[in-house]
Amino acid sequence: MAPGSEDRPSIGLDIGGTKISAGLVDASGRILRRDRAATPGSSPALVERTVADLVAGLRREAPDAPVGVGAAGWMNPETGTVLFSPHLAWRNEPLRDRLVQLLGTPVAVVNDADAAGWAEYRFGAGRDESSLVCLTLGTGIGGALVTEGRVRRGRYGVAGEFGHQVIMPGGHRCECGNRGCWEQYASGNALGREGRELARAHSPVAHTLLDAAAGDIDAIDGALVTELAAAGDPACRELVAEAGSWLGLGLANLAAALDPGTFVIGGGLGAASAQLLEEAELSYRRHLTGRGYRPFARIRRAGLGADAGLIGAADLARRDAADAQR
Amino acid sequence: MAPGSEDRPSIGLDIGGTKISAGLVDASGRILRRDRAATPGSSPALVERTVADLVAGLRREAPDAPVGVGAAGWMNPETGTVLFSPHLAWRNEPLRDRLVQLLGTPVAVVNDADAAGWAEYRFGAGRDESSLVCLTLGTGIGGALVTEGRVRRGRYGVAGEFGHQVIMPGGHRCECGNRGCWEQYASGNALGREGRELARAHSPVAHTLLDAAAGDIDAIDGALVTELAAAGDPACRELVAEAGSWLGLGLANLAAALDPGTFVIGGGLGAASAQLLEEAELSYRRHLTGRGYRPFARIRRAGLGADAGLIGAADLARRDAADAQR
Repeated sequence: MAPGSEDRPSIGLDIGGTKISAGLVDASGRILRRDRAATPGSSPALVERTVADLVAGLRREAPDAPVGVGAAGWMNPETGTVLFSPHLAWRNEPLRDRLVQLLGTPVAVVNDADAAGWAEYRFGAGRDESSLVCLTLGTGIGGALVTEGRVRRGRYGVAGEFGHQVIMPGGHRCECGNRGCWEQYASGNALGREGRELARAHSPVAHTLLDAAAGDIDAIDGALVTELAAAGDPACRELVAEAGSWLGLGLANLAAALDPGTFVIGGGLGAASAQLLEEAELSYRRHLTGRGYRPFARIRRAGLGADAGLIGAADLARRDAADAQR
Repeated sequence: MAPGSEDRPSIGLDIGGTKISAGLVDASGRILRRDRAATPGSSPALVERTVADLVAGLRREAPDAPVGVGAAGWMNPETGTVLFSPHLAWRNEPLRDRLVQLLGTPVAVVNDADAAGWAEYRFGAGRDESSLVCLTLGTGIGGALVTEGRVRRGRYGVAGEFGHQVIMPGGHRCECGNRGCWEQYASGNALGREGRELARAHSPVAHTLLDAAAGDIDAIDGALVTELAAAGDPACRELVAEAGSWLGLGLANLAAALDPGTFVIGGGLGAASAQLLEEAELSYRRHLTGRGYRPFARIRRAGLGADAGLIGAADLARRDAADAQR
């Protein structure tokens, strides 16, 4: 007998700024087969065409596999329209309708951080937790809230933008238009900016950083600072400690508002720096309101790495398909 | 035929720092009968005795009415224990068990801001809204999140402490132990503190304020500043404008994280100052992340005034009783 839609594999895609990752994923979150392609510029039509090609390739093995697509940006959950996507320059793009036309089947369209959070909840570091906040630390901070078995997306589908809580009024300018957003203090971009500032100030402590960048200050980025900190460079360790302290303060704010049982920290930066998470934990415990009279949410490193987005998109698509059959 | 527990009146109580309000409330949120008593110091046993007396009085008319009690503080929703109450000096107080002993029936024990938020959702300014953040502006900021027909209390029952999001690191000291909490900038206490500072600086613009306080700087509080602002005093209007601007910034942070459809602003300060809400709305629209690409949550003034807490506690008790019968 053919397996029911709850058990059969589904296809997940994660559309990033530089590449699109795709995978055929089974019901336990295991990736059976993968594929990828470069993200073709910022043309929505070319991106959609590439998504369709990747899906067609994976469907050769699993003809009717449900399809879920995760992308950075705000989705209208009712229409599947991308209201706004920071890296892809999509504005009111009817992504779901276009993909349905190209593929001839239903497609689930979700925010990439929501997809990653869902994957961690189902199969990763949050799988024993009913109330989860998942952060994806990269150039910015993506966020997802999962409670009682559902991703919570708010009234209009745009919740979870934790990185844009203002924690320093009048502070650093953010791409979102505001000043002082959390992600300007606790992300890879923040580490890069601080590293460049340190180097530009001709600080004697920045020589390792400058040497590693071959004297090119503009080449200093968050990844380099993180790498040098992990290798023991004192100046870079200071920068990571500072970012970790900001990270912990924002976690305490989220705990005050949401009281999750667990924070899962993923993304490239989350994976790269154990020090960042240690500093964040200390700062979180120092900043939590009502400490001493409440349980502390645990802070855990994500379990699924860079695959979380496509695994979550695939799993959400499988659920949608199963719901539609009922 | 006797009405089912879903329709019959229930009793709600709101335990404040100075008084306990009680009411018999019908299934449409109307208060059929009320009573009140002074809060007897900070002795838990005396407070519980007073609650029991108030309930006994109201039960003369409605013998088996379910009882709900709202109080400031953190409740463990499973045990009904008050983990911590700021005004009542309760620490790990088994409030529900004590009241059950005194009353001989089940009692629902809830956070007062949650009770007020629930009442606004059911019968007040949020009754046409599926996704609601309700703020109670008084000396501090109480908060409640209602989505899809439920008060969301987080993993350990202590969510909704929106007033303790840090929005100004290193800022004013808060009773919670942190610095820079939102409620130190956008509450009645904040207005009082700023008014006193202005007066202490011998500012020429503070003479109206000083006159109204009969020269006693320590007598200046948030209520006085709000009242003088409403009467047109320029200095107090500036203070209210500033608090409103902070209020709007915090609302934008909550919209980024939670994306509610409506904010309902209640509490004594929320009711007293139209100017505060106007300024908050302007600031909120200026600070919202992704403005231009997303719907704005509405900001509404609460509809039930000071009765919201007891009405919500009564309604939650009625629901609990109905659930228990199923």
